[in-house]
Amino acid sequence: MADINSPLENFLGEMPVTSGPLPGSRKVHVAGTLHPHIRVAMREVVLDPSAKEEPVRLYDASGPYTDAKTLIDIAAGLPPLRTPWVEARGDVERYPGRAVKPEDNGGAKSEITEFPNVVRNPLRAKPGGAGNGAVTQIAYARRGIITPEMEYVAIRENIGRAERTDQPRDGESFGAEIPDYVTAEFVRSEIARGRAIIPANINHPEAEPMIIGRNFLVKINANIGNSAVASSVAQEVEKMVWAARWGADNVMDLSTGKNIHNTREWILRNSPVPIGTVPIYQALEKVGGIAEDLNWDVYRDTLIEQAEQGVDYFTIHAGVRLAYVPLTANRVTGIVSRGGSILAKWCLSHHKENFLYTHFEEICEIMRAYDVSFSLGDGLRPGSIADANDRAQFAELETLGELTQIAWKHDCQVMVEGPGHVPMHKIKINMEKQLAECGEAPFYTLGPLTTDIAPGYDHITSGIGAAMIGWFGCAMLCYVTPKEHLGLPDRDDVKTGVITYKLAAHAADLAKGHPAAQLRDDALSRARFDFRWRDQFHLSLDPETALKYHDETLPAEGAKVAHFCSMCGPKFCSMKITQDVRDYAAKQNSPDMLEGSMLEAGMAEKSAEFRAKGSQIYLPTAD
Amino acid sequence: MADINSPLENFLGEMPVTSGPLPGSRKVHVAGTLHPHIRVAMREVVLDPSAKEEPVRLYDASGPYTDAKTLIDIAAGLPPLRTPWVEARGDVERYPGRAVKPEDNGGAKSEITEFPNVVRNPLRAKPGGAGNGAVTQIAYARRGIITPEMEYVAIRENIGRAERTDQPRDGESFGAEIPDYVTAEFVRSEIARGRAIIPANINHPEAEPMIIGRNFLVKINANIGNSAVASSVAQEVEKMVWAARWGADNVMDLSTGKNIHNTREWILRNSPVPIGTVPIYQALEKVGGIAEDLNWDVYRDTLIEQAEQGVDYFTIHAGVRLAYVPLTANRVTGIVSRGGSILAKWCLSHHKENFLYTHFEEICEIMRAYDVSFSLGDGLRPGSIADANDRAQFAELETLGELTQIAWKHDCQVMVEGPGHVPMHKIKINMEKQLAECGEAPFYTLGPLTTDIAPGYDHITSGIGAAMIGWFGCAMLCYVTPKEHLGLPDRDDVKTGVITYKLAAHAADLAKGHPAAQLRDDALSRARFDFRWRDQFHLSLDPETALKYHDETLPAEGAKVAHFCSMCGPKFCSMKITQDVRDYAAKQNSPDMLEGSMLEAGMAEKSAEFRAKGSQIYLPTAD
Repeated sequence: MADINSPLENFLGEMPVTSGPLPGSRKVHVAGTLHPHIRVAMREVVLDPSAKEEPVRLYDASGPYTDAKTLIDIAAGLPPLRTPWVEARGDVERYPGRAVKPEDNGGAKSEITEFPNVVRNPLRAKPGGAGNGAVTQIAYARRGIITPEMEYVAIRENIGRAERTDQPRDGESFGAEIPDYVTAEFVRSEIARGRAIIPANINHPEAEPMIIGRNFLVKINANIGNSAVASSVAQEVEKMVWAARWGADNVMDLSTGKNIHNTREWILRNSPVPIGTVPIYQALEKVGGIAEDLNWDVYRDTLIEQAEQGVDYFTIHAGVRLAYVPLTANRVTGIVSRGGSILAKWCLSHHKENFLYTHFEEICEIMRAYDVSFSLGDGLRPGSIADANDRAQFAELETLGELTQIAWKHDCQVMVEGPGHVPMHKIKINMEKQLAECGEAPFYTLGPLTTDIAPGYDHITSGIGAAMIGWFGCAMLCYVTPKEHLGLPDRDDVKTGVITYKLAAHAADLAKGHPAAQLRDDALSRARFDFRWRDQFHLSLDPETALKYHDETLPAEGAKVAHFCSMCGPKFCSMKITQDVRDYAAKQNSPDMLEGSMLEAGMAEKSAEFRAKGSQIYLPTAD
Repeated sequence: MADINSPLENFLGEMPVTSGPLPGSRKVHVAGTLHPHIRVAMREVVLDPSAKEEPVRLYDASGPYTDAKTLIDIAAGLPPLRTPWVEARGDVERYPGRAVKPEDNGGAKSEITEFPNVVRNPLRAKPGGAGNGAVTQIAYARRGIITPEMEYVAIRENIGRAERTDQPRDGESFGAEIPDYVTAEFVRSEIARGRAIIPANINHPEAEPMIIGRNFLVKINANIGNSAVASSVAQEVEKMVWAARWGADNVMDLSTGKNIHNTREWILRNSPVPIGTVPIYQALEKVGGIAEDLNWDVYRDTLIEQAEQGVDYFTIHAGVRLAYVPLTANRVTGIVSRGGSILAKWCLSHHKENFLYTHFEEICEIMRAYDVSFSLGDGLRPGSIADANDRAQFAELETLGELTQIAWKHDCQVMVEGPGHVPMHKIKINMEKQLAECGEAPFYTLGPLTTDIAPGYDHITSGIGAAMIGWFGCAMLCYVTPKEHLGLPDRDDVKTGVITYKLAAHAADLAKGHPAAQLRDDALSRARFDFRWRDQFHLSLDPETALKYHDETLPAEGAKVAHFCSMCGPKFCSMKITQDVRDYAAKQNSPDMLEGSMLEAGMAEKSAEFRAKGSQIYLPTAD
């Protein structure tokens, strides 16, 4: 499972997952100020000495797996980074957790071994107290408390901003309020207003805090699911490790069928990123797959089960109201959300309002006791260009806005899910309507896919929409792999999906004008211009593929330091010629040079015109 | 070279290239009205009988190679479709062409055999006459003549529009004037105004006419180049055939080094799409690769050589003016255009104005005599996010606007090239400025790439920018492959680049509101909803990959007719559940159903509100 750059030196035990630094990178940690004990992980790309540049620090979701100094043992799990932070707040208690039932793993004895060090006594909020039983980041934020989690994300978000403070801001943010510098107090205020969330279940202390909100860097989510035939624990954990390695800020475990409780435990104990789930999937398993047999008790039991395990956010399709279901009857592709269709079927078969809607406040009571964030599901999202922005979709969005207010009333963190399939000209209204209806709660969209005609390439059709909606204000982009609509993604598909969404999110950060976003582009472009090939690879989102593609044409070791590349060869290399031009221009007293050449060309008139403007062309450009 | 779906049945000779219909498609031809002899090629996807739908007609750039009825022999070349049309106009003459010189193929005896049936007497305009020596489509258009080429493209562009005339228009066209129905007269008027071009050298009669303009479907271009080691003629021709097969509307031959004259001849004689070149590349070869040794005579000779062969458009970097070169000195990546850097070097070393600029009217004289279209090159395009929209780039664009007017004065067809690397928020101003500066001449951009950090994935970083600028009004998108910045694209890279750009162009067509663009999305989405797997594959841009991905998870033949897919399995299939919902909803008298359920849920108040709106939710949605 280990990849070519990942010697297994830092592995303990018999269950290897991919580890080791990314090529050219090393892990560094930055200490907090308000909370000096926190150590914020990031990675640093050390450049060739010829660059005469400082190492480039990059946001890093990959966790301890890419830290050469950390020993990985998935049977032990990652260190519980946040446990002391949570316990220090004094508002939680350990209690005997819900006993695991056979149906949690699909009835039969699970083929996946139980995690060895499973926590039998999970944490939950103590009743009463200052937070009145809410241990959520929004509850603290509203009381003016800056938690270690908040300072952690402030430091993460700030990477590179100190260096950029002297430069003018660029970008079009469409009303986002992106600060020059992210203070912990800014993080607190954004969370308090509901404009950002830190998904951080108190029972998932292994996760490194991260923030999702319009005024922060655009994040991405990768979906994983259990294999139909459980091959090994390590392979199930590896899917999460692999996605995070390439930059997934969040991972959703969409497992169905058997073994899902035990598999989820292994994933959570080893995950450095927040884990989301769709609890209705497991609830449906518990009632034998019959949507009509779902009920509040089994759903509530599933929420408690997963909250105790440490799931950081739940997709809850409480907006699929009975009255909206007939609005989908004339659609080209009906209801394409699994959760949405399950609940639509339940509603119609019982002639009743969605039980997630009618029990919503009880759900809030559970969420706030563990700080599980809401991801209000868009069960009626469009599944085709023809169905985009229809009444069913927007009716549900309006209900999600109503539910956002209720969740906020209970001090719950909330984000809101969005489409789906939307042509480019209908994307912006989705963002605008979500901001308006949902009080600026973070938006979390799947793509959107901008055409239906490219199965096999829907990571790209959706990457286009994702970059755009990220620019317009979407806080997190749920990836799509090349296998979308066709089959189950394999390891390569997951990587392709993650990298595609990382570049889309980065394109959005650039366009929004995040102050330091362009540092990486600039460093890479300077490396490109200087023919520092290795620096170019190391600064790229996927150093391994960049190296591989380069070597397919020019495999010789010397080509990695050659001052030309395979596209043009030495004679035609435009960058080489540009360097000649630059050297030449530098040697000249440029106004004289220009004047001389103009006269030689017999263009005295134009020359005079240029003389008049002479000094101007050497000033920095206005653009 | 033939692919899996291409039996070589329809091949003559020993030099196979990929041929045979795309899976599920057949070639059809539609006759003209004004010019009844023309037969416009398109392809038709025949759907499963269960669909009860007419075959779906699709725009088709692939030429006779995908016609099961045509025998392909690349030593004979394609039929000279347009020769009778050209000769019927009575304004051309055959003359002894320029003799091929050794330096045309790089000095030594060419390793590529001469094309067997090379035309020794090319066509050129007769002096004088109604067109005063111009045999260009714009010259005819301005005189009110609707040529067969114009009617051909009108029929091509109209595919599906007749079926859509009853439906409301959708989209945001940013000032484009897209008609409900494309008449031949509309084509004429757009060409006369310079807002569109039909690249159609009178010496490339094999090409099927196509149009490039903001009010027509967005087109794409694929770049190919000769191999360093000339392996075989068929392999060189195959690159073009392969690109056109997957949808390249145009192909640019960017060959350098040896054998380029002979290779180009083979490509032109076999190409159903217009071929573009950058003549400065060959001119530079003729002077031993020394930019300073370039001169007007050798360049002029190269233009004539290529015009006689039939090249349909020339990239001419006449906007790289001496005065602009120093504007690039402080760029992060200087000049990244090969042509641009060659000419910059020439300008500086001679202290002279760019000789393409000073000889521009003489170039026009050549172009108009063969109807070679201008593609005014952007030699100073930005090569990094840092350099986007700078003064060097825009100064050149202003000059390209000036040159457009000169070319139009000479009755030449013109398009204008654009960037490059541009972050999303700076793309729109590129389009707006190009329209303003260049009198709405078609814009033809490379990407643009929306970030610099993803080498290995630059088909995607640029596909995002391409879709957006296509939406904003760009007429043709030059593809980028995954190997951009890293190495030479192979066969798979070319296909990936073409498909990526086809989907970007289609996303743009949808967003612009081309009346019939959505027909294909809708047909595919209906197939998806109905589990007509084969129809879904056949309607997709890449049926082979869609099938392959499907079969990786569910290889059994039965899975192609199964009413579920591998993502969810039969139990969870949202589309299956939706069908249940739909059947259910259809059986109900819906208002009663709703009313009943609301009351049951104890929500009498809301129920009353819904009753008041009762009829509304069954009307078609307003979106």
